[in-house]
Amino acid sequence: MDIYNQVTAQGDKIEYKSQTGQEYNKDVLPGDSSGAPAAAPKQDLVTPWDVEAADDEIDYDKLIERFGSSPITPELLERCERLTGKKVHRFLRRGIFFSHREFEQILDLYEQKKPFYLYTGRGPSSQAMHLGHLVPFIMTKWLQDTFDVPLVIQLTDDEKFLWKNLELEECEQLAKENSKDIIACGFDEDKTFIFSDLNYIPSSKAFYWNMKRIEKSVNYNQIKGIFGFGDSDAMGKISFPAIQAAPSFSGSFPQIFNGNLDVPCLIPCAIDQDPYFRMTRDVAPKLKPPGLPKGAKGLRKPALLHSVFFPALQGSKTKMSASDATTSIFLTDTPNEIKKKINKYAFSGGQVDVETHRKLGGNPDIDTSFQYLKFFLEDDEELAQIEKDYRAGNLLTGEIKQKCIACLQELVKEHQERRVNATPEKVQDYWAIRKLKYDFPDPPKIEEKSGKKEKKRGGAKNQK
Amino acid sequence: MDIYNQVTAQGDKIEYKSQTGQEYNKDVLPGDSSGAPAAAPKQDLVTPWDVEAADDEIDYDKLIERFGSSPITPELLERCERLTGKKVHRFLRRGIFFSHREFEQILDLYEQKKPFYLYTGRGPSSQAMHLGHLVPFIMTKWLQDTFDVPLVIQLTDDEKFLWKNLELEECEQLAKENSKDIIACGFDEDKTFIFSDLNYIPSSKAFYWNMKRIEKSVNYNQIKGIFGFGDSDAMGKISFPAIQAAPSFSGSFPQIFNGNLDVPCLIPCAIDQDPYFRMTRDVAPKLKPPGLPKGAKGLRKPALLHSVFFPALQGSKTKMSASDATTSIFLTDTPNEIKKKINKYAFSGGQVDVETHRKLGGNPDIDTSFQYLKFFLEDDEELAQIEKDYRAGNLLTGEIKQKCIACLQELVKEHQERRVNATPEKVQDYWAIRKLKYDFPDPPKIEEKSGKKEKKRGGAKNQK
Repeated sequence: MDIYNQVTAQGDKIEYKSQTGQEYNKDVLPGDSSGAPAAAPKQDLVTPWDVEAADDEIDYDKLIERFGSSPITPELLERCERLTGKKVHRFLRRGIFFSHREFEQILDLYEQKKPFYLYTGRGPSSQAMHLGHLVPFIMTKWLQDTFDVPLVIQLTDDEKFLWKNLELEECEQLAKENSKDIIACGFDEDKTFIFSDLNYIPSSKAFYWNMKRIEKSVNYNQIKGIFGFGDSDAMGKISFPAIQAAPSFSGSFPQIFNGNLDVPCLIPCAIDQDPYFRMTRDVAPKLKPPGLPKGAKGLRKPALLHSVFFPALQGSKTKMSASDATTSIFLTDTPNEIKKKINKYAFSGGQVDVETHRKLGGNPDIDTSFQYLKFFLEDDEELAQIEKDYRAGNLLTGEIKQKCIACLQELVKEHQERRVNATPEKVQDYWAIRKLKYDFPDPPKIEEKSGKKEKKRGGAKNQK
Repeated sequence: MDIYNQVTAQGDKIEYKSQTGQEYNKDVLPGDSSGAPAAAPKQDLVTPWDVEAADDEIDYDKLIERFGSSPITPELLERCERLTGKKVHRFLRRGIFFSHREFEQILDLYEQKKPFYLYTGRGPSSQAMHLGHLVPFIMTKWLQDTFDVPLVIQLTDDEKFLWKNLELEECEQLAKENSKDIIACGFDEDKTFIFSDLNYIPSSKAFYWNMKRIEKSVNYNQIKGIFGFGDSDAMGKISFPAIQAAPSFSGSFPQIFNGNLDVPCLIPCAIDQDPYFRMTRDVAPKLKPPGLPKGAKGLRKPALLHSVFFPALQGSKTKMSASDATTSIFLTDTPNEIKKKINKYAFSGGQVDVETHRKLGGNPDIDTSFQYLKFFLEDDEELAQIEKDYRAGNLLTGEIKQKCIACLQELVKEHQERRVNATPEKVQDYWAIRKLKYDFPDPPKIEEKSGKKEKKRGGAKNQK
């Protein structure tokens, strides 16, 4: 089995070479045995577990080239607005979601009034979610509201168990806590299924069988090449990618999609999750479970929307991290904590003193407060005015920090108010394995093969 | 994580060195990268997937030494007879089960009237089970009847999916068919749970969680060292050993053991399955799920009883294989097929002609017909007489073949008669997730930790 000999998109081939620094050869190991991907010198490191800019900040254009995805163009956004009759979300307007795979095909489906679904997720490694964790959920909520489609949200509590020094019971508990924050984002209960791997997998034969199909189709070499796992990594880690891939296929949720295997999927996520879905897209055409519609050449590849990373308080060289509290604003922070953190830690693009700042102006591109406003201040004109004033030196560092503090205090306060209603009972409602408020037609009938099987019985004669 | 630094039994250390030809060093890979274990020259190859004698036949004494298990001694069998008041099974009397791990501790439990359970299994790779496949089940039935303990039987249909060119649906179907043969062995429905991995795992959180615990505790290096997997093996294969290990722990079956995590387990199996259980025994003390009894240092290691391989018709250099019909007597064979196969293929220990045979005698040790009689002819005296007559030259090759044919025809006929009653409905009865006819006391109560968790919430402050 050799996923790289069967890739259909040119992008996927480019990716392998640039990820590993070598042409693909099925007999040669990618990378070395130390477990780190053999990245070219001075290349940004972007994996699901580590993000580190080679220079001052991540070069997202280069990532698009390396990963073989496509930039989100003004034309694509214009088409989206034309079809939906609605201004695109500020994350799209401002390039926060900057890259995609086959999003235009999702728009085709919408134009043709054909169904698709959304899939996003979270690895619940800590109780305290931070602002950066909100980004995919805010985008996903907008997509769900705009396109009126079903949504599945995976909580990879099993991943956190495998990667962190946590027990299963703790990871499950974190999944429950994080679900409250996700529910507080406002997802409609009738249209959203939130699931914990540790709970859903041992209750879904359909999901488990898709996992097994994926596990059979990708080998250790390929996993090592894509994710940089090493020989001293636990065996559970090595097969984990199948678990994050499985929700990309509608057959993993028969209760929602009425057993239809080919409902297309759109995944909004940060770009560091792309390795999982490159693997998923490579493997999809090789998966041919019974019940595929006539003429289907395997399962459908999921489409993707990729976001930039949410910068740490200290600046955009890396992403906000829940494990370092001084880098992050948490959704549990008080107004005063937010104020203190921005004032103390938020990297400033301003000048050394007021006089110089008035003369030379500030640099919003590296200013954390401005960057946070770019993520969360809805009003385009106000944001443009702030940028202009800051560049011109009319707006001081302390003043832009005040604007950022006010914006975040309001955002977090509203989130906390909504979170109060996300009770443990409400979490169970979202976790319930159930039909959503969408009707899917009956899938094609699977031919009964057991008659044929029975004829095959008879031992030795048929073994020859 | 380094299972070899924590081994408690000397045998396990010996095993690693002799398996790989090198001292254990956590920084050095065992074996080479080709995937095959670095076996010393002329060493028997014994893995769950391949058995090949270096010389004319497998040297079982050397296997005991290499694997670090213990021989089954006459003293052990005498103790067993003393405790049970019953002659041990012919498989034990005749050294067909020849090796064990901690069987004496199982006898201690029996003496103390403490509970334990039996676990065995089968990989359903073909509809037609052969005589060799019966061996562990015949032994297990005797053990169940003798000790009156619960039994779990794992059908690794997922393993066969991963290793063979079969679809999931086919493997599940084979598991159902094979269940009929297993049920026909006479296991009491009230005391036996038969499960297909593809069905039980996605319906048992307890089993799945144990799988995850094991997956976290064994790394790729170790898996490669124990099983000889290569880098081009599917990721599903690499984590599969966790699935065969999980039934060794009673916590994987809360419906049977009432949530008790420390009910000891005895596994009767062919010696080629031992790598799975060496791994299981290494990992057990590291697994500490909540609910362990006070003072328990992790989960219990399973005890084992190992059988020799059932010889192919062509002789004892290899084991009977379902994929080569000329090597095997199938449980579906007709009396005439059995007759033809024994007459045509069964390797003879006799001499070139009758005259020489009368003069020199035959060699029962290499005579397939005699070996089969040793497995299946219950009467010790009759078997001794046959051996004596054959060695003396009084019994001719054709005559010993007749005795073997008659014995096997009866065995297979009786099996087929019992199999008629193993309907699909009966299979579902044995597969049903249910309590068995044993009562286990309530397990120790697990301390509620959620209060503590709640106090921990609060984000940044607790992250420092």
